[in-house]
Amino acid sequence: MGDSGSYRFSKRLSHVPASFLGELFRVSSQPGVISLAGGLPDAERFDVEGIKNAAVEIFAQEGKTALQYTTTDGYLPLRTYIAQRYRSRLGLNADPNDIQIVNGSQQCLDLLAKILINPGDHVLMERPGYLGAIEAFSYYEPVIDSVQTLDESAGPDLDVLQKQIVTDNPVLWYGIPNSQNPSGITWSSGVRRDVADILDGSDTLLYEDDAFGELFFNGRPRSPVKKWLSHQTVMTGSFSKTISPGLRCGWIWAPHPVIEEFNRAKQASDLHSNLLSQMILTRYLENNNVDERIRETAKIYGERCYLMQEIIDDQFPPGTHHTSPEGGMFMMVTLPSGIDSMELFRKGVSNGVAVMPGFPFYIDGGGSDTIRLNFSAVGLEQISEGMERLSQVLRTLL
Amino acid sequence: MGDSGSYRFSKRLSHVPASFLGELFRVSSQPGVISLAGGLPDAERFDVEGIKNAAVEIFAQEGKTALQYTTTDGYLPLRTYIAQRYRSRLGLNADPNDIQIVNGSQQCLDLLAKILINPGDHVLMERPGYLGAIEAFSYYEPVIDSVQTLDESAGPDLDVLQKQIVTDNPVLWYGIPNSQNPSGITWSSGVRRDVADILDGSDTLLYEDDAFGELFFNGRPRSPVKKWLSHQTVMTGSFSKTISPGLRCGWIWAPHPVIEEFNRAKQASDLHSNLLSQMILTRYLENNNVDERIRETAKIYGERCYLMQEIIDDQFPPGTHHTSPEGGMFMMVTLPSGIDSMELFRKGVSNGVAVMPGFPFYIDGGGSDTIRLNFSAVGLEQISEGMERLSQVLRTLL
Repeated sequence: MGDSGSYRFSKRLSHVPASFLGELFRVSSQPGVISLAGGLPDAERFDVEGIKNAAVEIFAQEGKTALQYTTTDGYLPLRTYIAQRYRSRLGLNADPNDIQIVNGSQQCLDLLAKILINPGDHVLMERPGYLGAIEAFSYYEPVIDSVQTLDESAGPDLDVLQKQIVTDNPVLWYGIPNSQNPSGITWSSGVRRDVADILDGSDTLLYEDDAFGELFFNGRPRSPVKKWLSHQTVMTGSFSKTISPGLRCGWIWAPHPVIEEFNRAKQASDLHSNLLSQMILTRYLENNNVDERIRETAKIYGERCYLMQEIIDDQFPPGTHHTSPEGGMFMMVTLPSGIDSMELFRKGVSNGVAVMPGFPFYIDGGGSDTIRLNFSAVGLEQISEGMERLSQVLRTLL
Repeated sequence: MGDSGSYRFSKRLSHVPASFLGELFRVSSQPGVISLAGGLPDAERFDVEGIKNAAVEIFAQEGKTALQYTTTDGYLPLRTYIAQRYRSRLGLNADPNDIQIVNGSQQCLDLLAKILINPGDHVLMERPGYLGAIEAFSYYEPVIDSVQTLDESAGPDLDVLQKQIVTDNPVLWYGIPNSQNPSGITWSSGVRRDVADILDGSDTLLYEDDAFGELFFNGRPRSPVKKWLSHQTVMTGSFSKTISPGLRCGWIWAPHPVIEEFNRAKQASDLHSNLLSQMILTRYLENNNVDERIRETAKIYGERCYLMQEIIDDQFPPGTHHTSPEGGMFMMVTLPSGIDSMELFRKGVSNGVAVMPGFPFYIDGGGSDTIRLNFSAVGLEQISEGMERLSQVLRTLL
């Protein structure tokens, strides 16, 4: 043992897709490159002053508690706040004891996979699907299948979904019904009820990832699928897109037998989430009306999204298609026939604009003619300039 | 699906031992019960004011950065601090790029198991062994064997260790050489060199958990085994016992090929650790001389430990044996013949004192005549009163 190649690693690592994100991050952060490739919220929207004030209060009043170990489930006032918000926003009855705090909702992907997936079990997700889910699930060696989700039909192909549920009996069906990453698609209310119908009584758990549910800039908040399929749905949420990702505070809301196993797995995994952050966040939420701030953030992201769409519609070569997000941080673009997204990525970087190639979101090798664009991280001027550059690169590739 | 029993869980859950900690926590926190059962550092030792000042500086100077996403490896100034401290404290050369930040060193147990262990692989640990490691490893379905560690021989039984390494070719050998949890035993310097010799050239990785290395109150810091077996050792550390557990900041230092796989697994698991905490902690470490504070904390724990030993030696029934920790937070007591630790636990709670039964630390069903005592959480008066109660309960059980 000792040479680079000679360490023994578990076989499960061979199931994890090679990650492109390292290269992406490196080139996207080169000086002069406008990055539409990443997934950052706009740091200008963080309420640094408000969060600092909450922190100062916590240190002054409950410092010793905040710096000590705590229980695995998470800070009860925060779980209570989340439950009340489900009630006030969506009319849903959530018990704080069925909610657990995690280090950002990414951790739910890992821990749910851990307690649910046997090697060889089928897992169903959207096509394209969230890359972080593909990576997290892969460590548990499932067979991952995907159901095409389209902007035009406002959701996954229900016929294929129904067939796959019956044929493969997947252990879970993972989706992001609100402003999906990467596609930006939001499932229609009708699709949501249909998905609930299809799953009801099956042996498949719905994993409803709601990272973007509060970040809509067009329309109104839609009822989650969990409304019609409560006992068979786990739902996850996050403060990363609305308040701050650096705090690493997300949550899961799940039927109690699932929460119990999730809790055991969380304890074995890292005992509990950062208590100082949980307490600062809770105090911040109590002291401030975050609704207004979130609505304003969504509005700003919406303006950026619409500008992107306008530039694509007006200036991009014919045959370019884009999705029409109602919220979130991403849209998906299908390139004119013959253009490869990796080529666009490389040429784009040389010309000062970075995009995210779509293929990593497709578990079946597809998507080479798609890119994901982010409209949250940079302002209107940079979007305008970046899209201009992208348009020019596209024309040279045609 | 929907009834309590009808959710599909992965088969790996059947490998996870039933946890006793919930009951322990519940009864130990009853009013009037002096708990010697837990594992909390003394919150009176947290430098709330100093950490608050660091937090205020971070918010004022780098608030937006601290609240944003960051890279998986962790905050570079914190990794650099850890590397420098290995150099100044122990004369070891650590590259900050071979160090990664985690949510408390418990997370290393999970992620290392994930990248190393196939179902059925052998894993070797100490007997008794750290419960958190048993739980974390179990999810990856190894065969866990243990090597008896004794106070008298100041470390694991080297003959058995050597035999097991050859016979079972374990994927890792996990130990806590400094002030182990639960036993309080510290491996002698000779044992450390012998362990390195035994492992050198084998196909087994040493997992050296150093959660308590800075918390010695007798003797001096000892060189870790990694000193003699660098390319074949992963070492983990934690700020939980020295600064604050609520910040959830631990680390791993490992050979680069291991760090790379660890990093991929960490990214899939929760993207990155809490950045706000990492930056506050780093600023705190830069602004304060923590050595003095840590030495003082260790001294206080030492006084509590010695008082416990004195009471056991003077008042407990003949046939009671205790370990003699040089540091850390725990000691192990072997009860007089015929006394069962669960009975002592239950009678103890009814009489106002909680102890941790030893059996969960034994993966082979042993340890029913042992208990673990914690000497960090409560002060001298409570230790005195708690040990008095325990002594009386013991006598009624004889």
